[in-house]
Amino acid sequence: MISSQRQAEFLNTFVESIWSEFTPLAIKTNSINLGQGFPDWIPEEFTTKALVEQANTPQNHQYTRARGDLQLVNAISDLYNSNKEIGFQEQLDPLTNILVCNGANDGLYISLCSFINPGDEIICIEPYFDVYPTGIVMAGGVPVFVPLRPPKNPGPNISAQEWTLDESELRATITPKTRGIIINTPHNPTGKIFSKEELEMISHVVVENNMIVFSDEVYEFLVFGDNKHVRIANLPEMWDRTITICSSGKTFSVTGWKIGWLIGCKQVINTVGLYNQYKVFCVSTPLQRSVATCIRQSMDGQYFSMIQNRFKDRYQQLSQLLEEHKLKAVKVDAGYFCLVDVSGVNFPYDQNSDVPRDYQFCRWLPVEVGLAAIPTSAFYSEKNKHLAGNYVRFAFCKKKESLESARQAFQKLSQYIQ
Amino acid sequence: MISSQRQAEFLNTFVESIWSEFTPLAIKTNSINLGQGFPDWIPEEFTTKALVEQANTPQNHQYTRARGDLQLVNAISDLYNSNKEIGFQEQLDPLTNILVCNGANDGLYISLCSFINPGDEIICIEPYFDVYPTGIVMAGGVPVFVPLRPPKNPGPNISAQEWTLDESELRATITPKTRGIIINTPHNPTGKIFSKEELEMISHVVVENNMIVFSDEVYEFLVFGDNKHVRIANLPEMWDRTITICSSGKTFSVTGWKIGWLIGCKQVINTVGLYNQYKVFCVSTPLQRSVATCIRQSMDGQYFSMIQNRFKDRYQQLSQLLEEHKLKAVKVDAGYFCLVDVSGVNFPYDQNSDVPRDYQFCRWLPVEVGLAAIPTSAFYSEKNKHLAGNYVRFAFCKKKESLESARQAFQKLSQYIQ
Repeated sequence: MISSQRQAEFLNTFVESIWSEFTPLAIKTNSINLGQGFPDWIPEEFTTKALVEQANTPQNHQYTRARGDLQLVNAISDLYNSNKEIGFQEQLDPLTNILVCNGANDGLYISLCSFINPGDEIICIEPYFDVYPTGIVMAGGVPVFVPLRPPKNPGPNISAQEWTLDESELRATITPKTRGIIINTPHNPTGKIFSKEELEMISHVVVENNMIVFSDEVYEFLVFGDNKHVRIANLPEMWDRTITICSSGKTFSVTGWKIGWLIGCKQVINTVGLYNQYKVFCVSTPLQRSVATCIRQSMDGQYFSMIQNRFKDRYQQLSQLLEEHKLKAVKVDAGYFCLVDVSGVNFPYDQNSDVPRDYQFCRWLPVEVGLAAIPTSAFYSEKNKHLAGNYVRFAFCKKKESLESARQAFQKLSQYIQ
Repeated sequence: MISSQRQAEFLNTFVESIWSEFTPLAIKTNSINLGQGFPDWIPEEFTTKALVEQANTPQNHQYTRARGDLQLVNAISDLYNSNKEIGFQEQLDPLTNILVCNGANDGLYISLCSFINPGDEIICIEPYFDVYPTGIVMAGGVPVFVPLRPPKNPGPNISAQEWTLDESELRATITPKTRGIIINTPHNPTGKIFSKEELEMISHVVVENNMIVFSDEVYEFLVFGDNKHVRIANLPEMWDRTITICSSGKTFSVTGWKIGWLIGCKQVINTVGLYNQYKVFCVSTPLQRSVATCIRQSMDGQYFSMIQNRFKDRYQQLSQLLEEHKLKAVKVDAGYFCLVDVSGVNFPYDQNSDVPRDYQFCRWLPVEVGLAAIPTSAFYSEKNKHLAGNYVRFAFCKKKESLESARQAFQKLSQYIQ
């Protein structure tokens, strides 16, 4: 390396993301990939048709409005305003309460960059999606960690709801430098929906300490059965201090479109808009208009019911497959993922290695069993990786046939279980 | 504003971009928009057809490779490798020398963020595209400015080539904190192509001071007649210290697709890739594959010749229209834009205002004449805005009919010229 190539110093603490290791490993070993969270089914026809139509419209190929194409921001505000149960207490103004971004990942990133001053501390709840702490660091901030705690004496049917945030542990993270907190509900990787009471507890801490909330709610529409998604932005005093981050990729099974949006009060959206216009100017016109069409066509709720049922069914299918092979998923309420306790698997684990047990397991699994999963310790800070214990993350956002095709792999895996 | 909403401090120096003022003003006044640089023609049929086909392909809607879809990085390397005259001296490896980004604007941004430490100084050549200094600030750096100087005694046919960078002025900007320089060739807004000699002069300064070069070459394929685009990355000792930034939007008249790419040595691309995977993970799959198709279909050079000729014709058309109405464009060699001297226009200019003359002119022009242009002082730092003098930027990336429809407006404007 010649010295002109020296990277920004904060990057020296970055390593290649888990996706750079485990997705290629799944491909290389020709494994059934229950690791990365993308649906392997073909998106609904109305989705891809929307893109075909927008591609065929000659006016759709130049820059659009920096904060979001009018067709899309109008569709988003209509969706949320038309159904307060799934939407926001506030009546959304499409021009001032919404900012379209290059997917939810980028949406969180620009939100962090717009509000963090160097050295500001942002609280991350563990396990977290892996881009949270790096996003905080890229924005010049310092991540501070507080774990969800699983039940001390779990029953035979442990549920994601039982993983809870302890108020005193949360309060202990607060310092004069605390600037904000990242919430994720429905939660990746546990599949937990934070209850109203839990969010109220967090919101009290937030208001008392004058914090801002970055609320990643990309699984908002993938809630199973009678469970209800609660938005922290809808709690008292929270609207003005919350940025809610949403994803068309997760909602419409088009993770490759990379269109997300932020919802917030005018002041907050103005700030992120000021940042983003100089960073990217605007987001893809044909894709934004396609998402607008998808939202319009889903407004009657039928698509959302269908997709919720599909995810729930796939979860139940995976859950059953696991049970049949002496493994158990932590019961989930929403989303793409579930945690599975693999403590009983007797694989060649090197106790003297620095590599956590779940990492070793997830490196062994594709090679020996032909199955790919993601180690949960990737979602914990260094000091708390031991809490990841023996859990690995399986994605059930996969076709019935894909999950069924994993049967043989699970059979093989079960031979390693005592 | 409640205090939890306080924005990151650097944003306090940001104002809404010129695009937020002048594009809405053009729409509001129903003006002919020769301001913003987007083609108003329908993109070539093979372009939009490519997107239709990719949208219709079921496998194209999920995440793709973080550093760039394989179809696209292979097409890009084949394009440049197959023609060294337009490409790079180095044989490009699609997996290690290319990073796909959300348009060139975002590409510059992530490059700056990956290499700048707080307080590092980055040199910007004035006039600059407006996102350069804000990008440097967002990355934690400090922009340092050095102007291109127009000829002291310009002849009747002043050319963009005559705007030159003075070596001693450039060297005077160097301090122990100097980290890099942003180059833009072909240059927006002058339409200048930096000559090999000029780039060699810059490269000597760069090597002597161990700098990195961010080279914005988005107009690389829009070079008129016998002019040749020279890449600073191809000069001695420059490959290892240059990031070249390219744009499918500019090349294929699809500014709304927002797909760009970076070219650089393995070490440099690794660094930006490390950053970008945590910021956005990957870029839109269907759009990347569409650009791949567009590149493949242009490999025989016919499209590039056609589009170059079209831009040259439009420039000549605008140039003639200006001359017929007592105005003159600075002669350009490439790109979307030309500068026009409006010093002779006798409009109600408020000499006591802090607002530069060209800004006042561009606010008056749509309202009174029905024409939109961009003030050049928006592309200068505070201390050098006076150098913008009386120039405004016109875009000629517009249909023949659009430019012709501006005739009446130019007639009206000419009545204000003494």
